[in-house]
Amino acid sequence: MQTKRLPRVFIVGGGFAGLAAAKTLAEAPVEIMLVDRRNHHVFQPLLYQVATAALSPAEISAPIRTVVRDQKNCQVALSEAVGVDLAKQRLIFKSGHIHYDYLILAAGATHAYFGHEEWAAVAPGLKSVEDATAMRRRILLAFETAEYEGNAEARRAALTFGIVGGGPTGVELAGAIKEIAGQAIPKDFRHIDTSTTRVILFQGGDRILPSFPTKLSEKAQQHLEDLGVEVRLNARVTNVTNHGVHIGDEFIPIRTVFWAAGVKANPIGATLGVPLDTSGRVIVQPDLTVPGHPEVFVVGDMAAAKSANNGEPVPGVAQGGIQMGEYAGCAIRNRVAGTSSPLTRRPFSYHDKGSLAVIGKAKAVAQIGALKVSGFLAWILWGLVHIAFLIGFRNRVQVMISWVWNWVVNSRDARLITGDAQIQVTLPRSSDFVPDLPETAAAPHGQPAPEKVST
Amino acid sequence: MQTKRLPRVFIVGGGFAGLAAAKTLAEAPVEIMLVDRRNHHVFQPLLYQVATAALSPAEISAPIRTVVRDQKNCQVALSEAVGVDLAKQRLIFKSGHIHYDYLILAAGATHAYFGHEEWAAVAPGLKSVEDATAMRRRILLAFETAEYEGNAEARRAALTFGIVGGGPTGVELAGAIKEIAGQAIPKDFRHIDTSTTRVILFQGGDRILPSFPTKLSEKAQQHLEDLGVEVRLNARVTNVTNHGVHIGDEFIPIRTVFWAAGVKANPIGATLGVPLDTSGRVIVQPDLTVPGHPEVFVVGDMAAAKSANNGEPVPGVAQGGIQMGEYAGCAIRNRVAGTSSPLTRRPFSYHDKGSLAVIGKAKAVAQIGALKVSGFLAWILWGLVHIAFLIGFRNRVQVMISWVWNWVVNSRDARLITGDAQIQVTLPRSSDFVPDLPETAAAPHGQPAPEKVST
Repeated sequence: MQTKRLPRVFIVGGGFAGLAAAKTLAEAPVEIMLVDRRNHHVFQPLLYQVATAALSPAEISAPIRTVVRDQKNCQVALSEAVGVDLAKQRLIFKSGHIHYDYLILAAGATHAYFGHEEWAAVAPGLKSVEDATAMRRRILLAFETAEYEGNAEARRAALTFGIVGGGPTGVELAGAIKEIAGQAIPKDFRHIDTSTTRVILFQGGDRILPSFPTKLSEKAQQHLEDLGVEVRLNARVTNVTNHGVHIGDEFIPIRTVFWAAGVKANPIGATLGVPLDTSGRVIVQPDLTVPGHPEVFVVGDMAAAKSANNGEPVPGVAQGGIQMGEYAGCAIRNRVAGTSSPLTRRPFSYHDKGSLAVIGKAKAVAQIGALKVSGFLAWILWGLVHIAFLIGFRNRVQVMISWVWNWVVNSRDARLITGDAQIQVTLPRSSDFVPDLPETAAAPHGQPAPEKVST
Repeated sequence: MQTKRLPRVFIVGGGFAGLAAAKTLAEAPVEIMLVDRRNHHVFQPLLYQVATAALSPAEISAPIRTVVRDQKNCQVALSEAVGVDLAKQRLIFKSGHIHYDYLILAAGATHAYFGHEEWAAVAPGLKSVEDATAMRRRILLAFETAEYEGNAEARRAALTFGIVGGGPTGVELAGAIKEIAGQAIPKDFRHIDTSTTRVILFQGGDRILPSFPTKLSEKAQQHLEDLGVEVRLNARVTNVTNHGVHIGDEFIPIRTVFWAAGVKANPIGATLGVPLDTSGRVIVQPDLTVPGHPEVFVVGDMAAAKSANNGEPVPGVAQGGIQMGEYAGCAIRNRVAGTSSPLTRRPFSYHDKGSLAVIGKAKAVAQIGALKVSGFLAWILWGLVHIAFLIGFRNRVQVMISWVWNWVVNSRDARLITGDAQIQVTLPRSSDFVPDLPETAAAPHGQPAPEKVST
């Protein structure tokens, strides 16, 4: 009673694109293997809220196994695929390889530093749960340091945050940090006034949110400035160190810098040996396949795809990934069944369902088709859309409760500094603290504690 | 307009004992400096629920600054005190020292391995949020490994968990791991039946929960065995390795071992130069002070104290810490005011408010005064008491919602494997996976995938 082997579909990556592809293949007579080096899907649009202590990691994550638990044709492997042998149809792991009939690469992207990878250590980016908790630690440690820093200049630098990149992540981070400092924690500190915290958003171009209509970019900048964020346009960062940010000849002392400026695709794309764009993304065919290999799809942030309806590049947002994943899944389903469907009879077209970015409490910008809104209405819309797209009913309930709570009491309760190795110890700033060691004797401890500082 | 300097009280440690001391001093004319090397208080009795993916770290933690935010005489320093100079009244930090008028040491305890500190790497314990997320990672990775392990013996070891120590933490961990494996995740896996997971609780003595009445120890063991946990009494662990646990001549292959057997006090106690007990705890006077130094108190898990009412040692539980912290705070308050109070006119007495331990859904044991209950009623009681003692209204609401949710849908949603460095990659177990590298060629990959395994 031998049965014919089902076609095997490998999906690399359990983000928006990979999960959409898997779900689209739910009823197809295929054997899916979903490979991710993490065990959880992360709802990336809300990662900045973990970084700013508003939400817990588990609230915006879902175990991939649980997401596909009821899809019997889908297996999950916690594993890292490192390469593809297109000619032999092999997916390569660190310790071996395996044959695929169809392959969907959806392994996403990471930060890029425009050739200055050394900036990564001083200006981390935000792509994973680990990134988010590390960012949270840096934000919270900056205030701890400032509280006991006797030197006014160093204290000022500790209370200054820089964000490089004025896209949605940069804008949302800047607003959220300013909100924590101004509203959630001022009463927690005795020596500093955290509401004097400076947050500077550096944008290389001439407006923030360049993917939004100009009108909304201006609105968003207005919202940020109302909150107290300093927006620096046409500010090309030329160096970032532990001490601050260089913009050409100008130097701004900043202790904590975050990176939200550039991305580069997962390096597995480079192993295909096909043309890539400057961000390392695979330049795909109009049907999202690799040239000469109709069995290999590249989707989501790994793909440099053009939308057939308008010739525009597909943007690197959740909707882009979901639509590409669905297209690839649908194409494979049809191919296996020997049928065709309206969706895949044509080349891939991206349907823009709109853009949303939140700046702060009751402040957001939204563009949905011809509709452009800002302020409270956009904020409500933003909340509803994000709740709707979160995976898992419980996550939705939890996040809604957390938001309502944060909104009502102006609190950010997930303020954990975790990760043993990186806890930097601050010293009591006090008139009779006596430094012992020669290397710290030069430090500005031991000075009289000033009253509430509001430099 | 010079004002007299207020007496300075240093409190080392923001656990139950340290926070209780600080709060007791809220109205006193003193200047309190609360020093902790973490920025958050952790509700340790629920840490095992973070380790077993039922709760998020932030749900059982509270930023120490926020806890004392409204107490104007209390400053907080994120710092690690490393020693005390009793003669000079100095608290010593890594980089300097500072004078105290009163000192309360409440820095707690960590794991002890009976002189086998090398076991720490293979059998971690549970004291901090980092410990809990590391434990969660190990539990979840064990199932991931088993899913793609082709060798039946190795798979069996991966699906076996050992817990050393039959006190409340060990008992609660054992029950919770068995519950995850049996109820929360079986449908997530394709190749293994996680409900066949073995959980073995090793207890050196002749009953578990030795601090409880014998009747309840028996009940608790019955509950654990009903759940499917194997309880091994009089089982003295003689070695623990990556491969398993040795009990004398017997060897049990276990991939994942946790330690809940012994504690040792924070090493700062040893710098006092006064007598310690075998666990490194400071042997305190009846009024919880250090011999010859009525200005220095040692409280909580750092203190080897006897209760004046019955001569019994004060147990290392939350209630013990809280009562000792209150006593020390009250004593200092009286001393500063030149008054006395009923509490501190006598030596410290511990008032046992009861003991509680939970084994699983609707299964717990409780002893409150003469009342001994087990089963559902004890479980409800356990929940109410823990909610009541959690710090922060929001934490209470969140934890209650999480519990109700977990109870209704049998879910454990905080199943994040985090921490980049330690993610171990599993390989797809499949008939055509081809191992490449010599060192993995010997591994049992590449074998035909068996059907649902239920060894």
